[in-house]
Parts: sequence; structure tokens; C-alpha cells
Amino acid sequence: MLRTHQLGTLRAEHIGETVTLTGWVARRRDHGGVAFLDLRDASGFAQVVVRDEADFHPLRNEFVLQITGKVERRPEGNENPALGTGEIEVIADIVTVLNTAAPLPFQIDEHVEVGEEARLRHRYLDLRRPTPNRNIRLRSEANRIARNLLHEQGYCEIETPTLTRSTPEGARDFLVPARLAPGSWYALPQSPQLFKQLLQVGGFEKYYQIARCYRDEDFRADRQPEFTQLDIEASFVEQDDIIELGEALVKELWKLIDVEIPTPIARITYHEAMAKYGSDKPDLRFGLELTDMTEFFKDTGFGVFKAAHVGAVVMPGGATQPRRTLDGWQEFAKQRGAKGLAYVLYKEDGELAGPVAKNLTELERAGLAEATGAKPGDCIFFAAGSKSEARALLGAARVEIGHRTGLIKDGDWAFVWVVDAPMFEPAAAAVASGDVAVGTGAWTAVHHAFTSPKPEFVDTFDTDPESALAYAYDIVCNGNEIGGGSIRIHQADLQQRVFKMMGIDEEAAQEKFGFLLEGFKFGAPPHGGIALGWDRVLQLLTGSDSIRDVIAFPKTGGGFDPLTAAPAPITAQQRKEAGVDARPEAKKSDKDKKESAEAEAK
Amino acid sequence: MLRTHQLGTLRAEHIGETVTLTGWVARRRDHGGVAFLDLRDASGFAQVVVRDEADFHPLRNEFVLQITGKVERRPEGNENPALGTGEIEVIADIVTVLNTAAPLPFQIDEHVEVGEEARLRHRYLDLRRPTPNRNIRLRSEANRIARNLLHEQGYCEIETPTLTRSTPEGARDFLVPARLAPGSWYALPQSPQLFKQLLQVGGFEKYYQIARCYRDEDFRADRQPEFTQLDIEASFVEQDDIIELGEALVKELWKLIDVEIPTPIARITYHEAMAKYGSDKPDLRFGLELTDMTEFFKDTGFGVFKAAHVGAVVMPGGATQPRRTLDGWQEFAKQRGAKGLAYVLYKEDGELAGPVAKNLTELERAGLAEATGAKPGDCIFFAAGSKSEARALLGAARVEIGHRTGLIKDGDWAFVWVVDAPMFEPAAAAVASGDVAVGTGAWTAVHHAFTSPKPEFVDTFDTDPESALAYAYDIVCNGNEIGGGSIRIHQADLQQRVFKMMGIDEEAAQEKFGFLLEGFKFGAPPHGGIALGWDRVLQLLTGSDSIRDVIAFPKTGGGFDPLTAAPAPITAQQRKEAGVDARPEAKKSDKDKKESAEAEAK
Repeated sequence: MLRTHQLGTLRAEHIGETVTLTGWVARRRDHGGVAFLDLRDASGFAQVVVRDEADFHPLRNEFVLQITGKVERRPEGNENPALGTGEIEVIADIVTVLNTAAPLPFQIDEHVEVGEEARLRHRYLDLRRPTPNRNIRLRSEANRIARNLLHEQGYCEIETPTLTRSTPEGARDFLVPARLAPGSWYALPQSPQLFKQLLQVGGFEKYYQIARCYRDEDFRADRQPEFTQLDIEASFVEQDDIIELGEALVKELWKLIDVEIPTPIARITYHEAMAKYGSDKPDLRFGLELTDMTEFFKDTGFGVFKAAHVGAVVMPGGATQPRRTLDGWQEFAKQRGAKGLAYVLYKEDGELAGPVAKNLTELERAGLAEATGAKPGDCIFFAAGSKSEARALLGAARVEIGHRTGLIKDGDWAFVWVVDAPMFEPAAAAVASGDVAVGTGAWTAVHHAFTSPKPEFVDTFDTDPESALAYAYDIVCNGNEIGGGSIRIHQADLQQRVFKMMGIDEEAAQEKFGFLLEGFKFGAPPHGGIALGWDRVLQLLTGSDSIRDVIAFPKTGGGFDPLTAAPAPITAQQRKEAGVDARPEAKKSDKDKKESAEAEAK
Repeated sequence: MLRTHQLGTLRAEHIGETVTLTGWVARRRDHGGVAFLDLRDASGFAQVVVRDEADFHPLRNEFVLQITGKVERRPEGNENPALGTGEIEVIADIVTVLNTAAPLPFQIDEHVEVGEEARLRHRYLDLRRPTPNRNIRLRSEANRIARNLLHEQGYCEIETPTLTRSTPEGARDFLVPARLAPGSWYALPQSPQLFKQLLQVGGFEKYYQIARCYRDEDFRADRQPEFTQLDIEASFVEQDDIIELGEALVKELWKLIDVEIPTPIARITYHEAMAKYGSDKPDLRFGLELTDMTEFFKDTGFGVFKAAHVGAVVMPGGATQPRRTLDGWQEFAKQRGAKGLAYVLYKEDGELAGPVAKNLTELERAGLAEATGAKPGDCIFFAAGSKSEARALLGAARVEIGHRTGLIKDGDWAFVWVVDAPMFEPAAAAVASGDVAVGTGAWTAVHHAFTSPKPEFVDTFDTDPESALAYAYDIVCNGNEIGGGSIRIHQADLQQRVFKMMGIDEEAAQEKFGFLLEGFKFGAPPHGGIALGWDRVLQLLTGSDSIRDVIAFPKTGGGFDPLTAAPAPITAQQRKEAGVDARPEAKKSDKDKKESAEAEAK
């Protein structure tokens, strides 16, 4: 080693010792022929005193130094009790510059605001700053904690392939041309789903992997083309077993930030979550449930409320919002595709104000407070339209109200399991929300095609797809989905029926999932699992604004890496060699593959 | 859970308890109205007695059952002391078939030989067999052991990107079209090399990752297009620090199979390894060094030995090999590109026999035994030609001799560090051995372009590239390279000089490695690291014939996956969407990227 001690470990007990240290110049102060350096390494800081001007004159911030010197007690009055090393300083005998540093694009300082583009372009400098550094280190600890727990419970860590076959799960696949089979392509996996199920068929019973996954999406807010999930699957389990494991994991993870999560975590059905909170990932740090006002307004004369569904949510203390703020809410609604957000101001004196109020009948006005739970001084927001649109808007308004009114408090944590999700949704709805519908049917899977119906819907899901509920469970933290899973289908005939519902005919099923269906023929055990969105979990644990803050080298919105400037054009030679433009002769290439596989097997 | 107990945990203490079990039917024996089932789960086997013919009649091998019944002591004389559960049996009350199994393509039995193609096509069945199952479980343990050790030493686990920029390291990159930047491509990393170096620039000091790597190679024996390495990098280290860490890891790993590896592990220089063993990965389970006979034969009249280099290796007891075996050695040499393998049989009576002997002078014959170290009864093999060709042939012959003579014994382990490798080799030699030469120079890096020269060659490597030695170290086990690393270059100017030697001019260096060179400007610390070839390590630990045996879902020789039939043709729509055929307008796309990155950063 180029050092004898780490800087942050120096204490009074080292006084009198000659030590060799290495690190970066974090700060330098000159005091008449003496320079004081704050030297930084991964362990912390120590103060180094350099008395020779020839030594210290050339030094600049972020130079890398090797210092040999003696540890001494700081002169009285110069101690820094905020620093572990604050009692001592090192008097430099030998100063060696291990490397220089050009003027920095930004300072290595927690308190300097730097644009994300610059931070990511020079991510290696950004990572020297305390917060990014702490985030990445916490991630390493989270990995360790999760793996230890899973090991204690008998789980086996297994790596699954990433150059594989397309596993349609609601997004596009990234593709990789196969040079040795020109015209054929690998796909990067959207998750290890099929492999982890086949590992259950293979008898492993308890599998996990911290797995890299790939989804080629039109970048929605805060997604990455490659992301990480803690991927888990087990055999002979029921929903409660996986939920219990998920809770144990979350409990251990939040201990990392000294938060004790009470378990069992509450459960809510998907339909209840949609009705009460207008979201399948409700933020339960606060109450404020939506009210269904459809019945209340069923005979209304107010045109806006003559709709399939009318709902309301109350903003406590919202009656005094100035006109400009109320206009802002209209903008809020428009950004979410709605026409506006109707409201009634329930004044402290009991009067109902605002443009909607005058359109209501006396009866409606009289019953409104009781029906919505509003109190004098509150504002009542309304949304009318289709049930799903109205709920979505009110759900978003509810969260915004939570932030604006202080009902959502920093440091609060609310976890909930959302269970009993529908098996299917209309394919058009999935496409509208940015997913790729798997199959050509009118219905597509809400979770994915491998999710089992609950037993009471096994016989009816193909005749009444809308009602069928899945054995699926999502875990939600503060309004973020941090994980989800299901009990899977393990029988080939049931799987075929689900494929059929989704418009995947037998031929297409064979083509895409033949190996899974084949596996199910040979004694597939009942199984289920879960995946935790590892980037999202870490974002929450570190209190970061974005998953980019917990990824060592993240990409920006367009999938662009400001550090390496990937993706980039390729050369004509690369293109030619990769076989990008070859058209495979299906018959011939199958035969070749088979032959090469057989030759290999010998 | 669908069970109350795991099968393998049942003991005499459970006698009298009612249990619910799940598992696969491994074997069924009928005895007049009673069936005995060997039921198998991940924990082991237990015997289940089914008395109702209606229950047991339909059961076939690999059916998945749930059994509820009572644990009883086996009748006297029927115990099976070889089985942990051999004292008990379970009398089935309720037999539920959780899933059926079609007739198997091969039996789940350790003792049945099955071709690899069939095994991999139905890998989920293969993995139910004891050896493949044990291999994958040992791999999970190896991960755990390595991570624990690295954690104890303060290493931080960090994930690096896999959709990134080309990092030329001697193989082709796999490429991924970027749909959102049509005409641009990501590359899958050949290793996390550049990122782990940038993490050192970022001040992490101790990094590790069990990393997936990708190399698009013309499949040589027993390689995979995607493979795994235990990837490590640290700052302020010297070669001995990394070697010590590597030894600690290897020591812990081999404890998994109850082998104690003595440390420190011996070191040999690259040049010494080539001279003594004709290989840079010498198998040191046995001695049998090569002899340099060039001087001995410098005045020879025998045409074959009038060569730049003549070497010899002795086969103990080889003098009695029959003519057919000696002909076989000629074939052995020809397969390695040589004309043949000259030999002299040193008979027990002291006579020198074989076709070469008669071409030697009296003086040569008299001195031969002493010069080569041969004893009566041995065979002396010779190779003549260029030094590298002659040594390579004799090195291969040496290992073959080791196997044939029993000098290599099962259960022996010999580790060695090969140090002081040359920095450069002629680019032509790299290409001939199947690598892609990085750069357009006459010389290319033996390790990779980021390897530091040893201090004594820093000033001279560009004027005398052939002599320059690198700060590189490989760890070799039983003739297999299981890991390698180096002290890296951490200064931009030195890095530029190495690039220049390899024919990577400043523009190309900026294009390919600009972000690394940029990073080196801002206080890069001295650093170095190592990567262990995880698949190879596991192959050795499990005593497997191939790395395919320690990968859950491996590919065969041509990069083909017999299970999923990947790679496969893509649809015209996938091709169109992926932007495969778009030609980027460099200027425009750069601007777009920048804008999207900035938008994201807001």
C-alpha cells in the first residue's frame, strides 16, 4: 500500500507516530509560510501541515498526494470536535504529488448546486461529493442486507442469461445482432421471469438474483433503459409466504436508515385503492379518501356532473386559496389530460362559493358537506367523466393536496400491499399508458401473462375477463410501487387459455413461449415470487429525487450517457461483421444451429 | 406454504406427527396393493407409503404431489442408513396431484448418460439431477464467500452499466441499436474496466462487482458469449496488495471443497514460465521442465534441428511406447500446427533409438541424456523452429505427458502467479491467436491498454516495446488462468503514449477513450485491480469438464441456446422500430442528445 493509515482513522493515540497517508487536497489555507491542507480519502479527512513553501506552492484542489509525516496534537484552541481526526494534525516531512488536477468543472462540495448534465458528464467528480458517495455506499449495504436475509431463509442465488430470447412483458426488447448466426438476434431480458419460473421447474425451490433488466421504453419520467431488480421466486408457496418475505426484506432495508417498519403491513385490494385513493399505488402517509358522488348527483341539472362517474376530494383549509392558485389547479388538471378541476369553496361562515356552487340545487348545496366530509374552511374538488379518468385525476389531486397542506411529512413512511388486481385490462388502455400490449387480443395482462387467476376465477376468466382477479400483489411505499409479484400459472393448459385471452394463438405461443409450455409438461411445481425495484427502493432509502441518484453511471432521459456519450454510431466494418443486414434463411439456419449445438455437445 | 416440512428434514423425532409434504415422485415400487414412493424435494428424499390403489395407480415419475400423512417408524429391517430419513416413512392419508409429468426425454438420475444437447434443451430437467443442482448451489455459496471477504476488507459493491460504449479489450463488442437515437448503438461491455477505473477517480478506493461481461468471439473451446467475472479495483495499492487479496479469495473459495491452499502462492515470471513450461499458464501439479537445446545443437548436422530454437521435454518411462503411440504424437503435433514431434527413445540398456537418433553425431548422442535430464527408459521429445512455436508445442506435449504418465493426479491443486508479462506483443501474433488487435499499430497490449509499465520501463517502452514489462499478474490453477489483473496507468500522458504505441492516434484515443483521459486530468489516484474468471473458478471447484456445467442456462458453441432457441430472427416491425437501418446525422443527433440530457437534468 502507498499508505500506512487511512486519514479518517487517525486519533490522539497515533500522536508521535510517523505515518504515510494518501488522499486528495480538499482545501488549502496558507498562513505565512505554512499551509494547512484538508486531505481527504474514502475514510474521511485529516489536517496536514506543510511548512516548506516549495512543497505546498504548487498544490491545487484535488491534487493526489502522498504525505509522510508525524502525527501531532493540534495546538490548543485549534481542535475541531466536529471531526473524528480533529484532535490531531500531521506535520509533513515528505510531500509527493501522485497526480495533479486541472481546474475542476465544479467544486467537490456538498453545498454547491451543479446541473445534472455537468454532474453526469463528470460523474467521477460528482461521486467524490458526500451525498452521491453515500448513496452508492448505501446501495452496497442494501445488497448485502438483502442477500444475507435470503441466504438465511435458504435462497440460492442464480444468474440467468441476458443474451436470450424475447420475453414480452409490456415493453419493447433491446435487440442484439448475433454475428455467428447472421440475421438472428438476441434480446436483452425485460426481467428473468421465464428463467426463474424454469428454475422452479428445475427443483431449486428458492431462487433469487439482483438482476439487471432492460426495457426499451419511450422514456417516461425517471426510468432507465437498464435497471436492477431484486428478483425472487419460490415453489410450494402461497401469496402470504411471499408477502411475509417481502415484509422481512423491507423491514431489514429500512433499518439501514434507522426506521422501524411495523409489520404486518396493511393490505388493500386494487379496487378499494382505486375507489378510495384513485391510484393503484396509493400514498397512505395521509388519509383524505375520495368520495363517490355519482349517486349524489344522479339527478343533477349541472351539465358537467351529468357523467358516468362523479367523484370528490376535500382539501382541508382550501377555501381561502386565492384565485391564482385555483387557476393553477385547472392547469394541473389540463396537464393530466382533463378539461379542468371543478371546485366548491366551503367558506368558514358556511357559504358555498366558486363557479360550481351557483349551478347546484338547494338540496345539493345542503347535502354537499356531509356527503364529502368537508368542513367549513375546506375546498371540495370534483372530477366527472369515466370512472377511471375521474379517479385518476382526483388521485393526483389528492397527492398534490397532501404536499401543499403539509399532510405529507418528511420522514413519514407508509407501506401498503395492493392485492387482488384484475387479471386483464383492455389492450387499448395498456397502450394508452405507454405499454406495449402483449398479444393481439382486446384484453392484455395487468401484471403479466404468467400470473395465476385466483382460484374462484379459474373457470370463468375467459368468459368474464373484466371480473377476473389475479393472484398478484404490489408493495407500495409513500405512493411508489417498490415491488410486485404474483402466484404464477404452473399448468400448461391454464397458461394456454390465458395466452388465448390475450390474443396469442397456439402458434404464436409456441413460437414465443414454447420452451416454457414444454417445461410445464414435466412436473412444474406451484410457484410464485416477487421483484423489488431496486433503484426505486434505494431512491427512497436515500431520500433522493431520482433513481439516477442511486445509480453509479445513470443515463438521462433519452437513454443517453453524458459520460461516455453512448449510444454512438458504429463503423461500416462493425455493421458488416455483426451481420446486421443478413437475412436469415430460416430452414438453413435452424439446421446449422442444431449441428453446431450437437458438435459442441460431443 | 403447501407443506409443513421439507422431506429431507424428517427424522425419528417426527414419528407420530401428521405432516404435509410436497415433492416429485423420484421412484415408485408397487408391492401387492401398496406403493412405496421416493418423494424428492430440494432438501432430499423421504419414503411415502400409499395404500389406496386409486391414489397410486395414476402416479408416474416426476409427478408433483402434496401428501398429508403420518410419520411412522419403518418396519424393522427396512431402514435405509444411507438416507437421513431412512428410519421413517410417511403413511399417506391424502394424495393430491399438484401437477402431472409427461414421459421424460431422459431420466432424472445421476447415473444415466445424456447428451449435452438434450440436457441443455431440457435444462430444467437436467437441473433436477444431483450434480448440476450441486454445481449451481456451490456457485451461490462461492458468491457469498467472496462477497463476505470483500465486505470485511471494506470493499463496496457497485453496479456498472451494460448498455454503454465500446471498450475495446481484444474481442468484438456485442452491439445494441438505440431506438431513441436511430442509427446509434450501445455496446455491451467486455468488462467493467473503464468504469471501475473511473470509480477510483471517483474516490471509492475499493470496488467490487460480480459482473456480467460480453465478448463476441469466434467461439473457442469452452467460452461463452456472456460470462461472469469477480471484478475488483482499489486505489493506492501496489501489486503485492492485490496479489494478497487474490490469495485470500482463492483460499476461502477452495475451503468450500475442503482444500487448504498454502499461501503465499508461488510466483513465476512470464519469461520463466515460457522457458520452463512453454506456457503462460503452466500446470504446476508436476515438474518436468522443458530444456533449451539450442546451444547443444548449434553445430548439428541434422537439418531438422538447424533452427532458431530447439527444445526438449522428457517423458518418463516413455521409451517403451509402441510405434502406434509414437505415431499418435505426430498427429498431436500436427493438430497444433507443427510438422511433427521429433523423439529419441532412451532404452533401458542405454541405447538411443528412433528415427532421430541415427541423425545425431556421436558427441550429441553421448551428451543427450545429461543435457535433457533423461534416464534410461525415458523418451525425449524435441521441437525445433521459432522459439514461441517450439515452446508452445513442447508445453502442450508436457501437459499431455503429465496426464498419460499419471504425474497429474486427481485432487492435486497447484496455484501460481505469473508476473512480469511483456507490455506488448506483435499485433499479428494477437490476431493469429484469435484476438482482435486494438489499434492499428505493429504492437498491441498483451493484457490491455490500461496496464502500467513497470517503473523501470516507463521511459523506454516506446523505443523498445519488445523488452518492456508490465505490472501485470495472472493467477493460474492447474494450468488454467483463473484471474488476472494489473496496476493501471493513472496519468493521461502515460496513457496517451501507450495508445500511440498501439497505433491509436490522438483523435482515435479521444473518440474511444476521451472520457477516461478526461477523468485522468482531475486527480486520478494510483490504482490497480484484478478479475477472477468466475465461471472457470467454479468449473474447477466443482470438478466439471466445462464452464457450461456451472452456468444455469449456458449456450453452446455457436452462441446458441438450445432451451430458448435464441438467437432468432426478428420481425420487420421490430427491425423498423429499433432503428437498425437509420443513418445518423452526426451533428444533429449530438445536439438532440444534449438537449434531451439537459431537459432531463432540469
